[in-house]
Amino acid sequence: MKSSLNNEKIILKNRPNPEVNESLFELIFEGVRELVSNEILVEVKYISIDPAMRGWISEIGNYSEPVPLNETMRSLGVGKIIQSKNDSFKENEYVVGWLGWQKFSIVNQKQIQIKVDPKSNNLSANLGVLGLNGITAYAGLIYKCKPLAGETVLVTTAAGSVGSAVGQIAKIYGCRTIGVTSSDKKAKICKDEFGYDHVINYNKVNNLSSAIKELVPNGIDCFFDNVGGEQFDAVMENLNTNARILICGTIGMPSFPIPMGPRINRTILIKRAKIEGLLVLDYFDRYNEIYNQLLEWYKNGKINIKEDISTGLKSAPSSLVKILNGLNSGKQLVKL
Amino acid sequence: MKSSLNNEKIILKNRPNPEVNESLFELIFEGVRELVSNEILVEVKYISIDPAMRGWISEIGNYSEPVPLNETMRSLGVGKIIQSKNDSFKENEYVVGWLGWQKFSIVNQKQIQIKVDPKSNNLSANLGVLGLNGITAYAGLIYKCKPLAGETVLVTTAAGSVGSAVGQIAKIYGCRTIGVTSSDKKAKICKDEFGYDHVINYNKVNNLSSAIKELVPNGIDCFFDNVGGEQFDAVMENLNTNARILICGTIGMPSFPIPMGPRINRTILIKRAKIEGLLVLDYFDRYNEIYNQLLEWYKNGKINIKEDISTGLKSAPSSLVKILNGLNSGKQLVKL
Repeated sequence: MKSSLNNEKIILKNRPNPEVNESLFELIFEGVRELVSNEILVEVKYISIDPAMRGWISEIGNYSEPVPLNETMRSLGVGKIIQSKNDSFKENEYVVGWLGWQKFSIVNQKQIQIKVDPKSNNLSANLGVLGLNGITAYAGLIYKCKPLAGETVLVTTAAGSVGSAVGQIAKIYGCRTIGVTSSDKKAKICKDEFGYDHVINYNKVNNLSSAIKELVPNGIDCFFDNVGGEQFDAVMENLNTNARILICGTIGMPSFPIPMGPRINRTILIKRAKIEGLLVLDYFDRYNEIYNQLLEWYKNGKINIKEDISTGLKSAPSSLVKILNGLNSGKQLVKL
Repeated sequence: MKSSLNNEKIILKNRPNPEVNESLFELIFEGVRELVSNEILVEVKYISIDPAMRGWISEIGNYSEPVPLNETMRSLGVGKIIQSKNDSFKENEYVVGWLGWQKFSIVNQKQIQIKVDPKSNNLSANLGVLGLNGITAYAGLIYKCKPLAGETVLVTTAAGSVGSAVGQIAKIYGCRTIGVTSSDKKAKICKDEFGYDHVINYNKVNNLSSAIKELVPNGIDCFFDNVGGEQFDAVMENLNTNARILICGTIGMPSFPIPMGPRINRTILIKRAKIEGLLVLDYFDRYNEIYNQLLEWYKNGKINIKEDISTGLKSAPSSLVKILNGLNSGKQLVKL
């Protein structure tokens, strides 16, 4: 019986208006209830902090229901099963799933993505390049953009946890990679650790569009965008014919009110471009297949990771604010 | 020897600045030169007038090279071969091809799309629903949007030569069709002749987005857009998940300067939408296959056509201005 365990959890108290700040959240304490049939109890080891959380806590439902007020903040995590009433899961196994911002999580099978072997890699990597970020990068680049060897792939937030995976997978596929990032420090990481062929610090160039044009006069074949806004505009001015654009995120754009920008209809038409939105949840039926591919690359040293780990559940809200401001250096995680 | 023939042709004298008007063109007379090896001489019977011509005469190269100044205006046409130095073509055969705004056209095999049988259908239909417009409608809807029976397809310029084909092909595929058009007269044609399930006259509704929402609360699955601008915005507010949007034209938007509008990145992301641009020339290798399918439907009465035919080469410029202002009623053609 684990009902004597005490849980710590962070709940959502208010919605962004429009900024996301730490005061939206509150840490509370409560006992852990007993499991009912088919449930498992997981001791959370690492929590994943993701830009998509901005959407999850907003009032307007996007692709997933908003996190309800006064409920535990939604997040992926990795942890160890300490009790199970489900025949598919055993004590001491490790799982990745929707564990939330809390020390102990009661989940059912649907909320689990995958079992992981804590000996086969860093446990935390299961939340980054082997987790949501890597699956996102792989699904978006390989299934949607379908890059060919020799093509040019441009990635925004190139040093980020999704971006860096995209850049490295594109290199494995024989593409030329261009990373766009926000600082010289990140640009150096892009070059040294993620192997980008070219990196542009958009804060250092007068005109991003011209900087891209100089590097890639023939235009970008695959554009993996996590940002939107003016960076998006600059890349859209530099497409090759038949370009494929993947909208993975819009971290550089406010959600509301909907911002204005140059209309892209004629660009899409003239370049015969294809723009698609990716929701990684749509690819969870291929999670194992993608995971195994990424794990193989990771073990063979073809994919490097960089992590930015804060310690203690309490640090989750400030870690979220940090990544939304682009101040993290690698995949943002919270270690419990 | 046909070298004694006199040609009449319309050349491009100036580029739009930004309006397209009749003064951009000039009618000239000249002798028809002798054929060289592999060429054929065609007596033009019908000329197709298309919105894409706005792009062809603009300075900025889009997907095809601009028509050079002082050269014959580019257009598709259908005509009768009156002399041939090419073994694949014989006198008295009829062809569809890039014949230009002229009475007699010297072309090579590359400039011909297809031979047509003048007895199997109206000769002019080969320039509309059996020509560029029908091929565009078919390729965009079937190859790009991939509509499923029961899905909802919305078409802008619903009464136009492309739009009306899209609406009718969508019905053949078992879809529910929504046409958006600009007048009650056209709305009636949409209903009576092209079988749309619902038609919206955007000039008669207070708010196009709300009007669409009322008809299709679950959202549009396939959006075939010929317009851009505010009509585009209104439909983008009413997408179903996994919507497919085909950008076929942008007749409702100025080309330059690039107009501003609401950024669509978050919509694409949240709806997992796909937006693609279509250039029908990319599908010319499937011209025969698509032509035969369209011809079968046309012969079986499953596709109606409506034509707006002016007479005489001289009427070509005013016919172009007319369609760019949406004043035509059916496929615009010039009969020589």
